[in-house]
Amino acid sequence: MSTVIPAEKKVLSENQRIANALRAGFEHKHQLCLNLISSPGSGKTTLLETTLAHLPQKDRVAVVTGDLQTENDARRLAVYGFPVQQIVTGGVCHLDGRMIERALALWPDAALDLLFIENVGNLVCPSSYDLGEAAKIVLLSVTEGEDKPLKYPSIFAKAALLIITKIDLLPYVPLDMHAIEANARQVNPSIEIIGLSCKTGQGVGTWLDWLARRRAAMLAQTSRAEV
Amino acid sequence: MSTVIPAEKKVLSENQRIANALRAGFEHKHQLCLNLISSPGSGKTTLLETTLAHLPQKDRVAVVTGDLQTENDARRLAVYGFPVQQIVTGGVCHLDGRMIERALALWPDAALDLLFIENVGNLVCPSSYDLGEAAKIVLLSVTEGEDKPLKYPSIFAKAALLIITKIDLLPYVPLDMHAIEANARQVNPSIEIIGLSCKTGQGVGTWLDWLARRRAAMLAQTSRAEV
Repeated sequence: MSTVIPAEKKVLSENQRIANALRAGFEHKHQLCLNLISSPGSGKTTLLETTLAHLPQKDRVAVVTGDLQTENDARRLAVYGFPVQQIVTGGVCHLDGRMIERALALWPDAALDLLFIENVGNLVCPSSYDLGEAAKIVLLSVTEGEDKPLKYPSIFAKAALLIITKIDLLPYVPLDMHAIEANARQVNPSIEIIGLSCKTGQGVGTWLDWLARRRAAMLAQTSRAEV
Repeated sequence: MSTVIPAEKKVLSENQRIANALRAGFEHKHQLCLNLISSPGSGKTTLLETTLAHLPQKDRVAVVTGDLQTENDARRLAVYGFPVQQIVTGGVCHLDGRMIERALALWPDAALDLLFIENVGNLVCPSSYDLGEAAKIVLLSVTEGEDKPLKYPSIFAKAALLIITKIDLLPYVPLDMHAIEANARQVNPSIEIIGLSCKTGQGVGTWLDWLARRRAAMLAQTSRAEV
């Protein structure tokens, strides 16, 4: 997001058109698409590694991961045997609908049930760009401080789920978990919140349950729509 | 930074014009201006708290701090007795020259030696906007991972100093300090690097020395220019 200028409005409305088409496609194909957003280093890739390691190989899961530079994340994620694509944005600070459209075109025959999009590490700009996802998930590590939902409200207002990561570090950082939760709910009263540590495994089951629930809901919803 | 469009180029070149004027003003008045950039929660405000607590009250220091929402940071910093201004950007993901110009206009008679600008928490977009500073300083906490200079190279390429924060957490996180340093120097061979912890005080003296050296260099440089 840049200084507010008419050209940006145009970019955003063009993006919305593409995102709407992507969303219709996902729903038509019963695919659950989740858009993971956080600052760099909050643990998006690590959460995806943990998640892919827990999902059965028969599950039809794929990942699209964005960074300004390097294919490091795609390399880290590819070892789990699911299809992974890296989007290198150059300088661009967010993924947009067109990038997702292009990435999906490289998997023309892919029968997918679950698509994770790991956005560029940035707590601000990615929140403005709809990618057609069923839900945005925001990650915040316990080292980042409890005030962040109030200081960066846009993504917390739009996310269905807040994952508080690295809770194994709680003994070593001055953080009030209740304050994070209260601040997040002040911005978004209906946001769900899960605390977890990929290092100790604490909370990972709750996250996998959330995922299973959303996948079941997506199937139920799209099946109803077809009746 | 948004999708690359001509309007953005225009915004950036207009910003450069303002930044050049700001820089000329800072140099004319012997003011050292430092632009602190990092993700949210890397410890910019905590570093400024520690710094202000160590600086003599007779020093003519001021802080301009940017956030999308809230005046929390200005409140935290104001207790140290130095002038502080909060810029609330609304949704804008970076500070720009015009915002700094407006902030400085509210201190018309201020005789300053040292101005800290705490940018919006974002490792990407603020790197594109010159604020007339003598140096950009990038902060990265040990919990964010050693690959960040390679994945977000723009700010590491432009910064004079990398401050690696929260080194008290090193025993609890899987981080290779040598790899962070090697990755930062791969992007910017001349970047200076300081590791510190505001919690234990380790490395804070090295940072205060760096600051004193830059202040002395600014005075020497501007005095020479006047001869």
